[in-house]
Amino acid sequence: MGNRTALGYETTNSGMTLAVGTDHYIETDNEYESIAAAEDDLGRQIYRIEAQQGRPIVMRKAAVYHSSRGVPVPELFDRCRRTLDRVRDKGFGHYWRSQREWLDDFWRSTDVVISGQPAIQQAVRWCLLQLAQATARSDQHGIPAKGLTGSGYEGHYFWDSEVYLVPFLIYTAPRVARNVLRFRVGLLPQARERARVLSQEGALFPWRTINGEEASAYYAAGTAQYHIDADVAFAFAKYRDMTGDTEFMYRDGAAVLVETARLWADLGFWRTERDGTRTFHIHGVTGPDEYTTVVNNNMFTNVMARANLASAANLMREMQHLDAAAYHRVADSLGLRREEMNEWERCAKGMVVPFDETLEIHPQDDVFLQGELWDLENTSPDKYPLLLNYHPLVIYRFQVIKQADVVLALFLQGDQFSREQKRADFEYYDPITTGDSTLSAVVQAIVAAEVGYQDMAMEYFRTGLFVDLADLHSNARDGVHIASTGGVWNALVYGFAGMRDYKGHMTFDPRLPREWPSMDFPLRVRGSSIRVHLERDHMTFVLEDGEPVEVLVRGVEVHIASREPVRVRLHGQGLRLPSLDASHPVTGNRRADGSVITALVPEPHQQDVAGPTD
Amino acid sequence: MGNRTALGYETTNSGMTLAVGTDHYIETDNEYESIAAAEDDLGRQIYRIEAQQGRPIVMRKAAVYHSSRGVPVPELFDRCRRTLDRVRDKGFGHYWRSQREWLDDFWRSTDVVISGQPAIQQAVRWCLLQLAQATARSDQHGIPAKGLTGSGYEGHYFWDSEVYLVPFLIYTAPRVARNVLRFRVGLLPQARERARVLSQEGALFPWRTINGEEASAYYAAGTAQYHIDADVAFAFAKYRDMTGDTEFMYRDGAAVLVETARLWADLGFWRTERDGTRTFHIHGVTGPDEYTTVVNNNMFTNVMARANLASAANLMREMQHLDAAAYHRVADSLGLRREEMNEWERCAKGMVVPFDETLEIHPQDDVFLQGELWDLENTSPDKYPLLLNYHPLVIYRFQVIKQADVVLALFLQGDQFSREQKRADFEYYDPITTGDSTLSAVVQAIVAAEVGYQDMAMEYFRTGLFVDLADLHSNARDGVHIASTGGVWNALVYGFAGMRDYKGHMTFDPRLPREWPSMDFPLRVRGSSIRVHLERDHMTFVLEDGEPVEVLVRGVEVHIASREPVRVRLHGQGLRLPSLDASHPVTGNRRADGSVITALVPEPHQQDVAGPTD
Repeated sequence: MGNRTALGYETTNSGMTLAVGTDHYIETDNEYESIAAAEDDLGRQIYRIEAQQGRPIVMRKAAVYHSSRGVPVPELFDRCRRTLDRVRDKGFGHYWRSQREWLDDFWRSTDVVISGQPAIQQAVRWCLLQLAQATARSDQHGIPAKGLTGSGYEGHYFWDSEVYLVPFLIYTAPRVARNVLRFRVGLLPQARERARVLSQEGALFPWRTINGEEASAYYAAGTAQYHIDADVAFAFAKYRDMTGDTEFMYRDGAAVLVETARLWADLGFWRTERDGTRTFHIHGVTGPDEYTTVVNNNMFTNVMARANLASAANLMREMQHLDAAAYHRVADSLGLRREEMNEWERCAKGMVVPFDETLEIHPQDDVFLQGELWDLENTSPDKYPLLLNYHPLVIYRFQVIKQADVVLALFLQGDQFSREQKRADFEYYDPITTGDSTLSAVVQAIVAAEVGYQDMAMEYFRTGLFVDLADLHSNARDGVHIASTGGVWNALVYGFAGMRDYKGHMTFDPRLPREWPSMDFPLRVRGSSIRVHLERDHMTFVLEDGEPVEVLVRGVEVHIASREPVRVRLHGQGLRLPSLDASHPVTGNRRADGSVITALVPEPHQQDVAGPTD
Repeated sequence: MGNRTALGYETTNSGMTLAVGTDHYIETDNEYESIAAAEDDLGRQIYRIEAQQGRPIVMRKAAVYHSSRGVPVPELFDRCRRTLDRVRDKGFGHYWRSQREWLDDFWRSTDVVISGQPAIQQAVRWCLLQLAQATARSDQHGIPAKGLTGSGYEGHYFWDSEVYLVPFLIYTAPRVARNVLRFRVGLLPQARERARVLSQEGALFPWRTINGEEASAYYAAGTAQYHIDADVAFAFAKYRDMTGDTEFMYRDGAAVLVETARLWADLGFWRTERDGTRTFHIHGVTGPDEYTTVVNNNMFTNVMARANLASAANLMREMQHLDAAAYHRVADSLGLRREEMNEWERCAKGMVVPFDETLEIHPQDDVFLQGELWDLENTSPDKYPLLLNYHPLVIYRFQVIKQADVVLALFLQGDQFSREQKRADFEYYDPITTGDSTLSAVVQAIVAAEVGYQDMAMEYFRTGLFVDLADLHSNARDGVHIASTGGVWNALVYGFAGMRDYKGHMTFDPRLPREWPSMDFPLRVRGSSIRVHLERDHMTFVLEDGEPVEVLVRGVEVHIASREPVRVRLHGQGLRLPSLDASHPVTGNRRADGSVITALVPEPHQQDVAGPTD
């Protein structure tokens, strides 16, 4: 017989509710009395037992949680009761077995097997388990920055979900990916309202939120990150491309693409250049890197917005063509005018992506290169993270970045850039990247691997892999960096296995670390399941379920159609450059205006107050 | 016999104290009883009188206030008691007479007489009386933004004091000017500490403060206004130049000039240009205009910092030469090294003041001209002030300014620019200046008068003159805009009388408004008192007290040496241009990069949600 207690909570501002109910089952021949006691924030079940030697006491406990965005606590208590009744009726074994099945399935569809590296293998699986716990029951909520592991960031959702987690979910648990995206669909009304507050059309998703409203206290590093819109659109497009779930896109995703495209078309503006051409500019935004804020033409933002505009136009044209009813449903409900699609295409085509011909790199923004470099090599280790040791005004004055920004664009929109450009950008930005954000290392690993800095790729991968296990940022007590654990999967599959999936085309150009004999992982692609096995001199593909899948390996078409492995010869694992050392010559270069770039550490010299005055 | 009550207060954070004591004197033949009652925040003195017809009741009341930065309330009560005793002993008439004398003296040394304009005359005197009340007993405190008239800005002190009020005080009440400056000297320890927080050498005065600590909640429009340092130094230099008070400068002012120069030398940095020349840049600052924040090479800041650096170097070299003991006292206490003076001179010489050759204007900062123009002509009146109707991110994206910035530099450092440059800058910036700050109109009046827009000068002058009397900003309930009332005096003397005092040389180039037959005002100059009388075709000067004074009137030397008026013929009152109308062509111009400047109003179009979708 269960002894039951229940507690319920409601949050002050957002009115979200939570209830927990417990049943206690005791089996013993000893005499005992049972006392249940519930206080405001404490439920207790006390057993006072006259325990006799040799008479065992078995205690089993069932705990259930229900939460809601609006259902009152008493109704959640009812739900707890019904669930506890079900547990009582079906028995613990039933739930243990279904949990076991779920986990078996999870590992089957997720595990990345790395041979000969037990420590790395263990850490990778720890990361994957964190992802399971953070995402499996996200249902139509977002994924909090700390998952369910800690109170860091107050349970808020960020753009990390779309950029660092959704790709992992698309390839391992597409249904969960869809639920996460559906969460954004539900936030559209607040995002529209937010756009109005910012005097813009369309919708603007919040930088951080719990209930759809912007919860950032500091707009320069929060609201000004307009790129969130493009990140969300990016995730929707990738989801549709790689799952083939057209229905969700037509029904729910289209509104998100339309409203985000509208934001960009309205936020940016046209400029007539000297030669009469018209270019599209986006001013006054902050990119992913928060060590530079409120700038003009942030490269990441412009490149991502360009993709957002193009994919919205493409989708609506496709729907017009293939599903007129669905098109009209979306267009009517959003008041979409045909000329808007033309305008989005013009904006995408006219979008400026500044390139510095002198340094042959993409400036992070219009004035980024005007700063001097922060001399990270000569900055004492106790000064990191910079944001906790320097006033923002000091940090903003320098070329120094918290996390990959241009380099993240080189990964997410990599088909827009040549490998030479990527290498030049990586070589410029890597030495001035502090990695003060855990979102940085995993991205640096991917791009380092691609452009040839394979030892650096491994170093950045290990930084991401052990960020919490080794508590590298000294804040594991606040919870696990879930985005970084998603980034670890990205670094494995996109980084070392060299997968890319631009516009739905899956390609591989592997960079298997030289210490690793092989790696092996499953992927879900448009409803099919494939398995990828990578070794130094070849890779193989197997179709485990579903329709055949086409991929390209270094330009060679591969048809994956059966359980019979398709084998592809590999001539090496790509370019291997010596790592950039700390003295990589970024200083002494000249800007386009001819001025010399220098590096320094912003510290007051000690005034020699008692010294001689000549 | 006085019936006495007293109340005392202590502020929570800064520990400042205030006490008020009152004596009540009743004279009557009626029977009465007297009841004194004091509560926490209320003192009452109640008289219950058996009043008989024909028997008069005379009640007199003396109230005294004492305040302090640290003295405990009980000690302030003692001070109140002693003061009340003095009032009792000396009698009310004594204090009435000394007040009368003080005010006679105030008007003698301050009044600006404008003939034939009774309404303007009355408003001007109202402004001067506000200045008397706000400044007369500032002692060694600052002058709060609202004086003693209201609780707006919580009694805090801003840079308004140094730029808008100290010049008035220098010319009418030099002792008060010195007290205000001494207040800054007392804040040096906190300003040094603040510089350290910002990783800088020297001292950084707070944007707003009550006790020396920065009290701004929003660094972009607060702390980032590094120009405060240069404004303070500007006031010290002007005070010394126009009062001749070398002793105060050598003893107290020198440390302020040295520490502010150090801030600039450390905040800015050297850049080697293409041709090998080295230029000095200041990045990441906000100028007076708060509609653009955290920019590189704000023109006002660079020009004012240049003057700060030069005047610090000049002062210390002068002291070395003329008063070695004073020099060593300052140098020893500040650990000053001789090479610092050289460095300040180099910084001043190398300071960049960007000039746009295409538009032939000074850009407000390095990227200001990259924005599009806010179309103020087509912005509905209910959208002002913009800061209350638009998110800062929207405002920052445009060429639109809250208050004179470049134009203020053209006034304060006017000897650095040609009249053609001033006119071009004024014509560019005036149409995009909202005047959402009351600090703007009076400065625009001065520069408009100088460059020839005399009708606009009168319009701006009236805006400043009536800002509170006509409640033009709908916030007179919060108190009087004291800086603007100081600005009214500036507009009269610097604007219409055309006085300038660069580097201590007093010059006049009058712009007497055509509606005004004459104006007349006194000035204190290096211990002497002169009186200036301006009419359309001549002006006269009289020495009322002290040593002879030399001035230049439109290049002609004038020797003012006696009570016999010196008369100078005037050929007109300067250039008179038609006012800029709202459509002044700033749009359609091209930037240096060839792109076309456009103007727009940032508003979301109404989405026609129910409309046709073609």
